[in-house]
Amino acid sequence: MNEVVLYDYWRSSASYRVRIALNMLEIDYKTVSINLLEGEQRSRDYLALNPQGFVPTLVIDGKTLTQSLAIIEYLAELRPEYGLLPPDIACRQQVRALAYAVAMDIHPICNMHVAAHVISITGKAEAREEWTKHFIADGLGKLEAMLSEFNGEFSFGDQPTMADLCLVPQVYNARRWGVDITAFKRIVDIDGNCAKLPAFQAAHPDRAKP
Amino acid sequence: MNEVVLYDYWRSSASYRVRIALNMLEIDYKTVSINLLEGEQRSRDYLALNPQGFVPTLVIDGKTLTQSLAIIEYLAELRPEYGLLPPDIACRQQVRALAYAVAMDIHPICNMHVAAHVISITGKAEAREEWTKHFIADGLGKLEAMLSEFNGEFSFGDQPTMADLCLVPQVYNARRWGVDITAFKRIVDIDGNCAKLPAFQAAHPDRAKP
Repeated sequence: MNEVVLYDYWRSSASYRVRIALNMLEIDYKTVSINLLEGEQRSRDYLALNPQGFVPTLVIDGKTLTQSLAIIEYLAELRPEYGLLPPDIACRQQVRALAYAVAMDIHPICNMHVAAHVISITGKAEAREEWTKHFIADGLGKLEAMLSEFNGEFSFGDQPTMADLCLVPQVYNARRWGVDITAFKRIVDIDGNCAKLPAFQAAHPDRAKP
Repeated sequence: MNEVVLYDYWRSSASYRVRIALNMLEIDYKTVSINLLEGEQRSRDYLALNPQGFVPTLVIDGKTLTQSLAIIEYLAELRPEYGLLPPDIACRQQVRALAYAVAMDIHPICNMHVAAHVISITGKAEAREEWTKHFIADGLGKLEAMLSEFNGEFSFGDQPTMADLCLVPQVYNARRWGVDITAFKRIVDIDGNCAKLPAFQAAHPDRAKP
């Protein structure tokens, strides 16, 4: 395998997901930091890699891949033995539904460029915090309701899956913004169980800071 | 196969995607309309099926499935011969990335409950239109940039895939809100090619109105 390069940003949830996946699959990689606060995602060089101007981008097997969940699906298919997605198609459907409850229904709404637009239309810098807390709390409440149908140490059973790769960075964000998550008992438990695993520890934003 | 039931709403993009998929795969189904404007998605009965309170929900093979793209992945795996996702894993990654450029990066931001919150924090009913047009135009511009790397009649090659199931409902929404999409030539072409196919025609919101 050629060198694997992840273009990421330490605080980006989508980057955090892919770091966990690469660690779980024991794939060596180097990171290149794209500083979102300085607009590096909009440089001509970076847009040539990622036309949307988002992080992460993964260069692997001579291919340039974008979109964190599409990257994770690729990695899951490349190395199915690691169980990022379960083998049964109905189980995979459930893992994906849990992942999307975060990756579609919370994360994009709170993304930086969306929050910037909220500030712009309200004319209030503090509107970002209210916005972010509202949608994280609402979305995690809905995820908790979905998770109540499953047992086990992780989102889906006793082994971490793509669903947990989405949950953990969202919980990190919830804490960062001061969202009270104590009522979401399954989410808090699952996050705690993930935090014990080296693949999740090594991917933490504090360790990804450039 | 037992009776297949789709709980949907005629104007919901996510429902529209699943209707196209079921039609493409030649799966007979009946629909049950969940009127989002009347709050039927928050009824106790519906929440028992779909704890997030979103449409669509698909009951198939004795299972209750939520999250449109997780449903479509399930259908794609159930009947791979229809090509909703290509057989090669790198190609699947690209189709998913194109699908997510709509399903993650445009649709959730413009969702009804998000737009309602925009109205609430700005105190202006007209803020919804500005918000929706801004994010559809921005997101379709980014999708057009991604699509410029591919040729063919559809988003990915000469056969419709999951990417087109996301593109078409988003273009319908763009037109509904008066977004000028003439500059997005690949998107307009692909949408036109899809519109010739009976599976897409039969799924159109005008035909799904209760």
